[in-house]
Amino acid sequence: MATSMKDMIMTSVAARKEYAHAKISVVGVGQVGMACAFSVMLQGVASELCLVDVQPDKLRGEMLDLQHGLAFVKKITIKADTDYEVTANSKICIVTAGARQREGETRLDLVQKNVKIFQHIIPQLVKHSPNTILLIVSNPVDVLTYVAWKISGLPRNRVIGSGTNLDSSRFRFLMGERLGIAPSSCHGWVIGEHGDSSVAIWSGVNVAGTRLLTINPEIGTDKDEENWGDIHRQVVQSAYQIIKLKGYTSWAIGVSVSTLCSSVLRDTNSIYAVSVFAKGLHGIDQDVCLSLPCVLGENGITEVMLQQLQPEELAQLQKSAKVMGETLTSIKCCHV
Amino acid sequence: MATSMKDMIMTSVAARKEYAHAKISVVGVGQVGMACAFSVMLQGVASELCLVDVQPDKLRGEMLDLQHGLAFVKKITIKADTDYEVTANSKICIVTAGARQREGETRLDLVQKNVKIFQHIIPQLVKHSPNTILLIVSNPVDVLTYVAWKISGLPRNRVIGSGTNLDSSRFRFLMGERLGIAPSSCHGWVIGEHGDSSVAIWSGVNVAGTRLLTINPEIGTDKDEENWGDIHRQVVQSAYQIIKLKGYTSWAIGVSVSTLCSSVLRDTNSIYAVSVFAKGLHGIDQDVCLSLPCVLGENGITEVMLQQLQPEELAQLQKSAKVMGETLTSIKCCHV
Amino acid sequence: MATSMKDMIMTSVAARKEYAHAKISVVGVGQVGMACAFSVMLQGVASELCLVDVQPDKLRGEMLDLQHGLAFVKKITIKADTDYEVTANSKICIVTAGARQREGETRLDLVQKNVKIFQHIIPQLVKHSPNTILLIVSNPVDVLTYVAWKISGLPRNRVIGSGTNLDSSRFRFLMGERLGIAPSSCHGWVIGEHGDSSVAIWSGVNVAGTRLLTINPEIGTDKDEENWGDIHRQVVQSAYQIIKLKGYTSWAIGVSVSTLCSSVLRDTNSIYAVSVFAKGLHGIDQDVCLSLPCVLGENGITEVMLQQLQPEELAQLQKSAKVMGETLTSIKCCHV
Amino acid sequence: MATSMKDMIMTSVAARKEYAHAKISVVGVGQVGMACAFSVMLQGVASELCLVDVQPDKLRGEMLDLQHGLAFVKKITIKADTDYEVTANSKICIVTAGARQREGETRLDLVQKNVKIFQHIIPQLVKHSPNTILLIVSNPVDVLTYVAWKISGLPRNRVIGSGTNLDSSRFRFLMGERLGIAPSSCHGWVIGEHGDSSVAIWSGVNVAGTRLLTINPEIGTDKDEENWGDIHRQVVQSAYQIIKLKGYTSWAIGVSVSTLCSSVLRDTNSIYAVSVFAKGLHGIDQDVCLSLPCVLGENGITEVMLQQLQPEELAQLQKSAKVMGETLTSIKCCHV
Repeated sequence: MATSMKDMIMTSVAARKEYAHAKISVVGVGQVGMACAFSVMLQGVASELCLVDVQPDKLRGEMLDLQHGLAFVKKITIKADTDYEVTANSKICIVTAGARQREGETRLDLVQKNVKIFQHIIPQLVKHSPNTILLIVSNPVDVLTYVAWKISGLPRNRVIGSGTNLDSSRFRFLMGERLGIAPSSCHGWVIGEHGDSSVAIWSGVNVAGTRLLTINPEIGTDKDEENWGDIHRQVVQSAYQIIKLKGYTSWAIGVSVSTLCSSVLRDTNSIYAVSVFAKGLHGIDQDVCLSLPCVLGENGITEVMLQQLQPEELAQLQKSAKVMGETLTSIKCCHV
Repeated sequence: MATSMKDMIMTSVAARKEYAHAKISVVGVGQVGMACAFSVMLQGVASELCLVDVQPDKLRGEMLDLQHGLAFVKKITIKADTDYEVTANSKICIVTAGARQREGETRLDLVQKNVKIFQHIIPQLVKHSPNTILLIVSNPVDVLTYVAWKISGLPRNRVIGSGTNLDSSRFRFLMGERLGIAPSSCHGWVIGEHGDSSVAIWSGVNVAGTRLLTINPEIGTDKDEENWGDIHRQVVQSAYQIIKLKGYTSWAIGVSVSTLCSSVLRDTNSIYAVSVFAKGLHGIDQDVCLSLPCVLGENGITEVMLQQLQPEELAQLQKSAKVMGETLTSIKCCHV
Repeated sequence: MATSMKDMIMTSVAARKEYAHAKISVVGVGQVGMACAFSVMLQGVASELCLVDVQPDKLRGEMLDLQHGLAFVKKITIKADTDYEVTANSKICIVTAGARQREGETRLDLVQKNVKIFQHIIPQLVKHSPNTILLIVSNPVDVLTYVAWKISGLPRNRVIGSGTNLDSSRFRFLMGERLGIAPSSCHGWVIGEHGDSSVAIWSGVNVAGTRLLTINPEIGTDKDEENWGDIHRQVVQSAYQIIKLKGYTSWAIGVSVSTLCSSVLRDTNSIYAVSVFAKGLHGIDQDVCLSLPCVLGENGITEVMLQQLQPEELAQLQKSAKVMGETLTSIKCCHV
Repeated sequence: MATSMKDMIMTSVAARKEYAHAKISVVGVGQVGMACAFSVMLQGVASELCLVDVQPDKLRGEMLDLQHGLAFVKKITIKADTDYEVTANSKICIVTAGARQREGETRLDLVQKNVKIFQHIIPQLVKHSPNTILLIVSNPVDVLTYVAWKISGLPRNRVIGSGTNLDSSRFRFLMGERLGIAPSSCHGWVIGEHGDSSVAIWSGVNVAGTRLLTINPEIGTDKDEENWGDIHRQVVQSAYQIIKLKGYTSWAIGVSVSTLCSSVLRDTNSIYAVSVFAKGLHGIDQDVCLSLPCVLGENGITEVMLQQLQPEELAQLQKSAKVMGETLTSIKCCHV
């Protein structure tokens, strides 16, 4: 057969586009990175998805496993490479890479180690996609969002930390469980640091427009007989609890990140609690990233929402900012 | 209140993007145009949808009616204007505008009238979106696809006629009805002119890889005792039948067009039967557009599939091309 | 050919299910009924959709037009008949049938006419689907929801009026337009009568947990310098405005109704403002249906949300109930 | 507070439905089970999802991790328990539980071990959901589908093995890669045993209705210069290759299974290659399950498609059936 099958059954009219206009890259194919990638694939968020990792075998295995499911989902092109060139022209780069805490290692040691990893990753992502939006997922996410911002040289709106979008989702789920209502009909925000020092904004918690604080002025405090504050405590404990039970968290962070990507690529201007450079807001005077409700669209974070915080909420937020500011000044990174 | 509510509840970080990267415009807000627009909105195909029409009242009414449903669907921005400037930077322009045939009017008169309308519309679309893909839906769609191509000066891959994608869908539905199987599991292609002289490719009709022609060598012919050819006859009659019953066709063409748009914007490289400049293929030597199975992606039609046609199918196709070529030479348009 | 094609290419293993478990029927194939049907089809809400109307031609035309698009959407079976038997075992019956107001006709005349139509329709729906949920869309929707409930003999939770779900959607869209935020991130409720005397609950209007009333205590009143009350006025005017511009409303009500159906069939327990028998709530002592935020699931309305209304809002709601109560006592219907 | 928050903000109208009408249970929360569960959750296939496993910690961790993402997806209720009672009234039970092959263990030992596990699992599933459809995913899937059928006592149409649906998907993806076309536009079937002895039906392979066999009569054979047969070899090697690279396969089987579930719950009557009791078809006279293209709907497998196999394909299929028949007679199970 002189002519190939391909030439026998089709004739070319024009070249394919070199770059997909809705391309997402995921750095790190561990449990979190792959849950993000699989969510992006199943929810039809992008038209191209690229995976990058330092382990070529694992990387190729994950790519093939995703590709073999493509016949069942909305079309998406899936690529993978250890070379960052594969990420060229990404609209969003999701960074899930990073070391995990080891025994005997201080938290600061861990941060320092991940900063070093980011110093390797971030410049390569920005080099190949100078117009990209960075979506940082690696922990500690607020510190690393700040670090990524500094290393990248990108404007503030294009460096986003997955932050307390997940904490807020957990809060709404638990609230929904108590009331027997869909999480999507339960409204509440968890802001500040993702994890231990996160702040639940009880004054904003509402269902069908009814503020729970109006019904029960002690909600969220120790005096509340129904102990609603327990919901926030469960949110804070969630990651620890799940890691203890199954070894890591993956599904919820995956679908949280995929939702943020969708909001950017579809230019929704929806509001999500994500980690953003927060200096100058709510009396925070440190150079830190923290989660606040932000408007997300094609240009990343275009607005930060200014919630009416109660004095105690404000104090918690500022305290959290102070601790984080100290961490950031102690790490060697971004003397910018 | 000195400060506006907006400034009280949010602080700006960066400007919004001026243009959505996934913008679709629809010219003509009649039944067909609106079914296309509503399908695009419900299927989440675009991030921005613009309507254009000469009737400002009708146009504004349709825009408001779509906008009022936005709280229930994936985010999409909806705009409308009589001025084509609103369509700037569209990835796809769907053209549904055009006169309908009146009593006493010849078919050629109708074509001539619509050519005149296209001479007004097409240059304005291309002016505001020089990189757009034109998706022609107005009838007679094959003639007008050719006319739009000539007027636009765009490369051949970026002028697509909705063509027999709908006829093929009707064919698969009727085939599925006969067999009790989902249309998506029934494979068959109707090509050529959209409507009267369309050609059913019986040699390609298959279910689960089984060619019906192998089972029944007379399928599609008058000798076939099961009269499968009736399916194609029903396809040809469909538009007439529905227009007689309800006055116009809308839903099926709407979802057909929305599917083509999705294939382009998601860069799927899926195959659909659409109207394309066909000279030089299957022995066609006229300057005409006809439907053939094409690969659709972000760059429009990148390949035309070369089906193995049976002699009779080939003859029908060539005859259809000849008639259409004569129509095209007789109209005053594009002495290019 | 002795054996049919069907028998040649497949062998039977078991009978098909006689009834789909997710079946929706639509009574009335006018603009509203068809926008509901097309939304249900495109959003993949049901596995079977049946249309009923008194005009066999129009009915058949609409059925064929939907069927011809089936190759492009998630599988759904579409049927149509003038005989209500086709609706057997529907999980939801959407009623859009009804006369429109004619010149010289009083509103009461119209109601009386539609009551008569409902006396014909409702018993047949309940006869063929005794476990169905009735979703009333015909106007005046609150009156007809009450009438349908009485005629049907169904429990209160299984007769739902589409009510102010659409008004609330319009409100959120307009709020989003003002703030440049997605409607899904704008929270506000319009309750009471669908249309003229609807009540906007300003105390519940919030964005990212921030109550606009806290920022601007005069919001919604005449004293508000930013004139937010105009949004509610626009909501009230919407139907009139669109009818004037395009002749009828269709798209927004279609997608609103489809969303309610999805909430029922997916058992979401989400909250929507729908028309429900309201006696005994918010000091209403008339036998009337009005929209209040309700929890919707497979068993219909399982809970009504008790919002904290401001005195003026309460007064408006009660006044509206009183007027509606008078209408209902004056019509000849349901001496139950 | 004497009255609970819940009672303050809502009033009950009717009880919730006890059982969701679209409930799926997953037995086994390993990588495969969880990829199935996450796919079902993200694709909105069911309204309730229950997980069962013998390890309570892992089980609870996976449940929480899924639940925390619920705010971002279409509503689904997620439960988990070690007690099978939680699965009551499931429409589909997906079985992914089973031992993996250990070193020094024969394949027959493995089968025998998994048969024992199934003797424990299957009766409990059927007890709590007598009308359920069993969807077997554990390997060796064809043997275990037969075993599950025998143990269950269910009719043949309600015991389905995930079979070569995945192999067919891999085939279409690889075919699409070669041609630069979406997998959904590439048609080809892999039938028979899932894995090593699977059979590619080259006579049915087609694109846009064009049979590749007609173009290249040696396709799939050793004489083919373009070596299309390599695609099938890659399909057979896929699982081994991915297990070697990443340790297990998960994503593709997850989305394959979720697609089968969707076809059942939506009653699509689409055709998929799944494992079915095959005696009497294609000259197979053993009591075995093998994958053949089947019509799937609410009643499970209602028809098996009778493909026109070439002599060599038939021989391979029959040989595969013979080996499997021998395995089945040698295991101690279902002396029925």
